[in-house]
Amino acid sequence: MENPQDRPPEDDVHTKGADIYDEDGAIRASFLAHIGAAIADRDTLTLKQDVGALHQSEVGDLIEALLPEQRQALVELMGSDFDFTALTEVDDAIRMDIVDAMPNEQIAQAVQELDSDDAVYILEDLDEEDQEEILAQLPFTERIRLRRSLDYPEESAGRRMQTEFVAVPPFWTVGQTIDYMREDKNLPESFSQIFVIDPTFRLLGAVDLDRILRTQRGVKIEEVMHETRHAIPATMDQEEAAQIFEQYDLLSAAVVDENERLVGVLTIDDVVDVIQEEAEEDLMRLGGVGDEELSDKVLTTSRSRVPWLMVNLVMAFLAASVIGLFDATIQEIVALAILMPIVAGMGGNAGSQTMTVTVRALATKDIDIYNASRIIRREIGVGLLNGAIFATLIAIVAGFWFSSPDIGGIIAVAMVVNMLTAALAGILIPLLLDRFGADPAVASAVFVTTITDVVGFFTFLGLATWWFGLL
Amino acid sequence: MENPQDRPPEDDVHTKGADIYDEDGAIRASFLAHIGAAIADRDTLTLKQDVGALHQSEVGDLIEALLPEQRQALVELMGSDFDFTALTEVDDAIRMDIVDAMPNEQIAQAVQELDSDDAVYILEDLDEEDQEEILAQLPFTERIRLRRSLDYPEESAGRRMQTEFVAVPPFWTVGQTIDYMREDKNLPESFSQIFVIDPTFRLLGAVDLDRILRTQRGVKIEEVMHETRHAIPATMDQEEAAQIFEQYDLLSAAVVDENERLVGVLTIDDVVDVIQEEAEEDLMRLGGVGDEELSDKVLTTSRSRVPWLMVNLVMAFLAASVIGLFDATIQEIVALAILMPIVAGMGGNAGSQTMTVTVRALATKDIDIYNASRIIRREIGVGLLNGAIFATLIAIVAGFWFSSPDIGGIIAVAMVVNMLTAALAGILIPLLLDRFGADPAVASAVFVTTITDVVGFFTFLGLATWWFGLL
Repeated sequence: MENPQDRPPEDDVHTKGADIYDEDGAIRASFLAHIGAAIADRDTLTLKQDVGALHQSEVGDLIEALLPEQRQALVELMGSDFDFTALTEVDDAIRMDIVDAMPNEQIAQAVQELDSDDAVYILEDLDEEDQEEILAQLPFTERIRLRRSLDYPEESAGRRMQTEFVAVPPFWTVGQTIDYMREDKNLPESFSQIFVIDPTFRLLGAVDLDRILRTQRGVKIEEVMHETRHAIPATMDQEEAAQIFEQYDLLSAAVVDENERLVGVLTIDDVVDVIQEEAEEDLMRLGGVGDEELSDKVLTTSRSRVPWLMVNLVMAFLAASVIGLFDATIQEIVALAILMPIVAGMGGNAGSQTMTVTVRALATKDIDIYNASRIIRREIGVGLLNGAIFATLIAIVAGFWFSSPDIGGIIAVAMVVNMLTAALAGILIPLLLDRFGADPAVASAVFVTTITDVVGFFTFLGLATWWFGLL
Repeated sequence: MENPQDRPPEDDVHTKGADIYDEDGAIRASFLAHIGAAIADRDTLTLKQDVGALHQSEVGDLIEALLPEQRQALVELMGSDFDFTALTEVDDAIRMDIVDAMPNEQIAQAVQELDSDDAVYILEDLDEEDQEEILAQLPFTERIRLRRSLDYPEESAGRRMQTEFVAVPPFWTVGQTIDYMREDKNLPESFSQIFVIDPTFRLLGAVDLDRILRTQRGVKIEEVMHETRHAIPATMDQEEAAQIFEQYDLLSAAVVDENERLVGVLTIDDVVDVIQEEAEEDLMRLGGVGDEELSDKVLTTSRSRVPWLMVNLVMAFLAASVIGLFDATIQEIVALAILMPIVAGMGGNAGSQTMTVTVRALATKDIDIYNASRIIRREIGVGLLNGAIFATLIAIVAGFWFSSPDIGGIIAVAMVVNMLTAALAGILIPLLLDRFGADPAVASAVFVTTITDVVGFFTFLGLATWWFGLL
């Protein structure tokens, strides 16, 4: 890295990019046309100037807005001026397309320019053979560092950490530390704390930069360092690490190996991405879609959605067979067939409400043994109350519609039963799935709606069969 | 604030708290019992020691685990040793309970100890009268600062910002700046960048602390500062501000008023909370629940869920009336009543899948005019493909079940039509709602399922009526 005094102070500011977005947050059409024309003209100068001036995330958005063939051309035309960090900002499928089309030598070249966490992010999706070929072309220390990160399990803190960090011994003074940072040319690009280590790299503590700046030069580091209570084991799942960041409002945290030796640093910007991903995962799972991406093709998307629909189909046949038990009753009183989806549907909706709250509370660990029984009691209360409200409404409408107070009464009773069932299913199913180690976001919805369908159809049609003496 | 050299270096580390959680992440039962006993014994010494040693978020978790009457007692017994920041970490309803029970003088006392963003967080939920009474008891500068924050709209950057920051003039040297930080006793508790302002507080730029530390003492601040391209207007919505943080990986950002004057700083830890809240909001809205909290009582919860169920009820009656059109057909062929929920349900599920993906993509701004038409085409493809797959399956099962190839054929056609409808509804409805400024997460689900219900019932029963000549 060049000496800080030598580089222009604005080197990480990109004034050009300010207006590449329109009011809707999409890349401005005129800018896209301009870049498209430059690609068509193979006008590398314009590209290097106008794309080179953008922030990596802006380049990412630009790439996503381009046509697939333009993306490839842009990367090629810009050559070494292309900031590979931008690839960490695009959809997985688009990144794979671009990287797959590049020769391994070029990837190796590009990866060397990246922070280690970004390099790992790009390398981890390649197949092992390509990974090895690329790693083999890297300088020794970098190869070792990246390989170590890649050896940690997927979605672990070790995969997301940056292996560049500033570490000093405890007996240095604040003045020595500041001088070291002024002179060392191999510092990470930005950092917010300094770690304190012993000669074997064992982590002793950390000092925030503001503390350094507020302390007299003569003071020893060990006097201003604080214990790092929140050192993160490299094998820890990234979601768990993110929760520690959130709970303790950390900006960065030391990552240590099994011997408590400092191996890297996890920073809040990576954690923000993890938080987003995890929140997205819960939402997608509740909606019955897997890890699909917007850039997936029809076949991939279809394949990812079929399993869920298949489970639902089986459950739908189960519910249908419950209706089948009462075919004679329906033939007698067709009004029942008309009304039965209302009972089932209202139960399904009420169940989804309770389930959504429960799944979210489980994800954020807001539900525990101290409040679970209170929340279960509350949901039963809500189920009974809302059941009573809607039973009354439905009874009146249905009773008048079919000029039959009997049908009104029957649907009211079925409604209360099903709303109560919905409340219980909505809270107990996610809790049980969680207790048995299953992901409540994936499986809860199908169980809840099946139960509310089955109970809804059975209670309503069963009650009617009994009341009208059609047994 | 005391001189940094005077305070013990571990003042923000809380070694005691490390094991207050059990493996499930809940407060350990033994610890809870210990604190409960200390509260019962009015043993303030133990409380001050053991609760005082915890991180604010741990105190928050502890408060949530305690019984309501214990919470009040804990705050009272700990007196000025109670860290009010902990109240920003608990459910709104619990915080309101605790704060409402406190005399305004005590709140005013406590608020003075807080960072301005935390103070605003606690004050903003109080009614205006209490707010004024509390503000009146604060020292002049603090009163002005808090009132300014509270004057900004709810959920704006101005509400979330911290009004404590470090700002220096551009002509100072790095050395002067460091000396100033070493001597000034009124610095914020922690910070990661220094702002550069002119005499009228207009923002000129910013310098990251690592840059300061890497620069020789004699260099002028204006030479190392960078332009702050991402200054955030105080009136900007917090969600928009969070997106800027995410896109540009910011740790903190200047907040400016309408005259570009620096009024505060927004930090990543607050932004992480915003990101969590917004992700939660989308999930909850898709699930048909509003801003409810786990600590809400039955009545509040019921009230928050009734509107959604009411809309669903109206839509359910709409779907039922479609069935009603074909009552004669159902009386003739009861199998149709048994099978019709399958057609409607599968469409509903497929529609939810597409809708979930679309709502999420809209929230993260991943969908725009460049890829919308491609994604619409993809969803149509997926709808047709999955429609064909499940039509075949259902046709076979239904055909054998009722020994009628005709019914098998009819349900197959209805299935393809409804899956295609689901795909179109799932993508177009959120897109249209977004275009017309409505929140797609709130309203999409009810429209999508209504459409798949209505189309499902109508196609299936209509086709059967026509095929079997029952018109």
